[in-house]
Amino acid sequence: MTDASKKGPSRRGFLSGMAAGGAAMAAGAVRAQTQAPDPLITEVQPWASEFGDPVDAVPYGMPIRFESHVVRRNVEWLTESAESSINFTPIHALEGTITPQGCAFERHHSGAIELSKQDYRLMIDGLVETPLVFTYEDLTRFPRKSAVAFLECAANGGMEWGGAQLEGCQFTQGMIHNMEYVGVPLRTLLAEAGVKPEGSWIYAEGADASSNGRSMPLDKAMDDVLVAFFANGEALRKEHGYPVRLVVPGWEGNMWVKWLRRIGVYDQAVDSREETSKYTDLMPDGRARKWTWVMDAKSVITSPSPQAPIRHGAGPLVITGLAWSGNGRIAEVDVSLDGGVNWQKARIEGEAKPKALTRFYLDIDWDGSEMLLQSRAIDETGYVQPTKDALRAIRGLNNVYHNNGIQTWWVRADGEVENVEVA
Amino acid sequence: MTDASKKGPSRRGFLSGMAAGGAAMAAGAVRAQTQAPDPLITEVQPWASEFGDPVDAVPYGMPIRFESHVVRRNVEWLTESAESSINFTPIHALEGTITPQGCAFERHHSGAIELSKQDYRLMIDGLVETPLVFTYEDLTRFPRKSAVAFLECAANGGMEWGGAQLEGCQFTQGMIHNMEYVGVPLRTLLAEAGVKPEGSWIYAEGADASSNGRSMPLDKAMDDVLVAFFANGEALRKEHGYPVRLVVPGWEGNMWVKWLRRIGVYDQAVDSREETSKYTDLMPDGRARKWTWVMDAKSVITSPSPQAPIRHGAGPLVITGLAWSGNGRIAEVDVSLDGGVNWQKARIEGEAKPKALTRFYLDIDWDGSEMLLQSRAIDETGYVQPTKDALRAIRGLNNVYHNNGIQTWWVRADGEVENVEVA
Repeated sequence: MTDASKKGPSRRGFLSGMAAGGAAMAAGAVRAQTQAPDPLITEVQPWASEFGDPVDAVPYGMPIRFESHVVRRNVEWLTESAESSINFTPIHALEGTITPQGCAFERHHSGAIELSKQDYRLMIDGLVETPLVFTYEDLTRFPRKSAVAFLECAANGGMEWGGAQLEGCQFTQGMIHNMEYVGVPLRTLLAEAGVKPEGSWIYAEGADASSNGRSMPLDKAMDDVLVAFFANGEALRKEHGYPVRLVVPGWEGNMWVKWLRRIGVYDQAVDSREETSKYTDLMPDGRARKWTWVMDAKSVITSPSPQAPIRHGAGPLVITGLAWSGNGRIAEVDVSLDGGVNWQKARIEGEAKPKALTRFYLDIDWDGSEMLLQSRAIDETGYVQPTKDALRAIRGLNNVYHNNGIQTWWVRADGEVENVEVA
Repeated sequence: MTDASKKGPSRRGFLSGMAAGGAAMAAGAVRAQTQAPDPLITEVQPWASEFGDPVDAVPYGMPIRFESHVVRRNVEWLTESAESSINFTPIHALEGTITPQGCAFERHHSGAIELSKQDYRLMIDGLVETPLVFTYEDLTRFPRKSAVAFLECAANGGMEWGGAQLEGCQFTQGMIHNMEYVGVPLRTLLAEAGVKPEGSWIYAEGADASSNGRSMPLDKAMDDVLVAFFANGEALRKEHGYPVRLVVPGWEGNMWVKWLRRIGVYDQAVDSREETSKYTDLMPDGRARKWTWVMDAKSVITSPSPQAPIRHGAGPLVITGLAWSGNGRIAEVDVSLDGGVNWQKARIEGEAKPKALTRFYLDIDWDGSEMLLQSRAIDETGYVQPTKDALRAIRGLNNVYHNNGIQTWWVRADGEVENVEVA
């Protein structure tokens, strides 16, 4: 489905002598034509003289056919089975901060199951005063909270440990989405069951065959975790865990258990498959980092990027991207046009919400010469997004997860863009 | 499609002697069952032992089949033609604040046209230094802004002037949606063309056959109006004006011209069909209010409501709804259980954004007796949403537009809900 097999060249040493345009945009630069004999202006077009679709043509609408390329895509060789695979968000073609459910990253461990509200049950058991089973309707009777939050897979950018290997930020950083959730705080349900004093961990599992069980310290479970049933205003889609999933703001996506079936309360972690064999970070000395739940600050330029080249030539150019941090708000995003030598402060658009995607822009007057575009996120804790090499120096090359290194796009003079690395 | 022809009874005088439960929810009220021999818990279900869908089953996902009732609906007898009609948002079944594009209110004057980016042109002419024609790509080169904003049709609630006539808040208040938009400020494009000193109005028209032309004072055009191309993260849907529409925060929906074709700058209003014959408010003395652009503060309880009855009986009940104001932020929402005699302050969830839908909740312990539910919005200017009778006393009954009166739902002891009025 994509040019995913391409092994991108390492472009170390490319940097010297670049002269990319970083000047502020010239005021009044004309980006439009004065009126000309353009038949689209001078002649009556069919759409201006005939009826369009009636209102009842589409009870539930889909994107217009011209946008049929803006879809999730998988990379077949990444996994053995599509039931246990990854479908990447087309972040190169999206804007703003909300990710529509229909094209939002999905990953399953045994496929997306179909589970009705009638068949739904949630059990809370283990170290609780009163083990409880909730129906879907039971859940709707508790006070609700909402949160806009990003979900990022721990493996997002994982291929980049080995260098620039996948073309397009859909594939390099597209294991992410950002939605407005509504649900019941998990602490409310835990309080209903009554956590015993010795309870210090929970274990969440889903109703699918994989169960995708994950342990979580009770502190987090009592903090900002939601048992959610709505996303972006409507019911969760099937592939996002209909009818109920966990929302675990700032923490890696596999903790956000879909088709949530059970919360067990324990006095220690379960050490399940998904937190021992998987989702641990193998270090150079052969030991593994464990419980690396929080997604550190990260950013990526979504346009221009390999799937979103510059078609309009030199002159005014909008550079835009996304930044996020599992530790809170994004405080600043810097953009470099020359592979990290010089940095300019990007404009953060709107409110930077905690643990949510944040949109940034840098508006430049591009001189048409090649650029090495990078972005660097800084969050409210002062953490600065590192280079890939800085990460590798500590974590080595055995690891799959938690690559939040700075991404580089090589913009050529013809506007085409490639995934590269600079030293 | 709905029980729309039903003329709701006037329930004036219904109020006396009501004893609806308004007590704060009892702490620790158990809303779940302890474990029981429930086969959904004790037996392995098919979805827990078989693969679900692979990730590439749906490149662009749709709601699960169990939610097929959560769709836009029209009321056929309201208009003569479905090309010039209304499709209402299912607000009774949505939550949070974002409205998905797929089920968001649509209204066209001559149908939803299909217009490609290649065929798209925007002309700015009239009292400008340099008349300009922009291609879609031209527009993408200007600095972008985003805004979350509600769009409400001036006719939303219009049938309520004559009493409780339509069952369900989808039909009484569903001519509304709320999205995150990204686009170019209109002032940026006007500055590019150079507005002459005598320019004091703009006139916006669409590329569809109706053109839906509307005049707007230059002050508003230079304030917060966006020439938008993205909504909720992705391209505008066809029925929402793909590829470009106006976003006019706080002002009535017909000003938000879709398939935007031309902005003319003039020294007076055009007085087009849509601002003389239509979208003026006929007063009791036969004169019409004109230029009633701003949507005043309003609210509605979305659940329980006629399409969202109470199925679970007495006990803990989540009452929720939406509030909004074209004049800024919602400051407070009050809820009455007894038809406006007593009011309780509702909980506003999350940030109340200016000119955007705001979600409110009141969590009660329902005693199972009947209620007359109302909500009342107060915005940051101090404006208080009026009763329908207070509006009628001033504006009479000739009018179609700008009914922001308080809505009443009669909740019966069996949990069914009807649209009624109280005196």
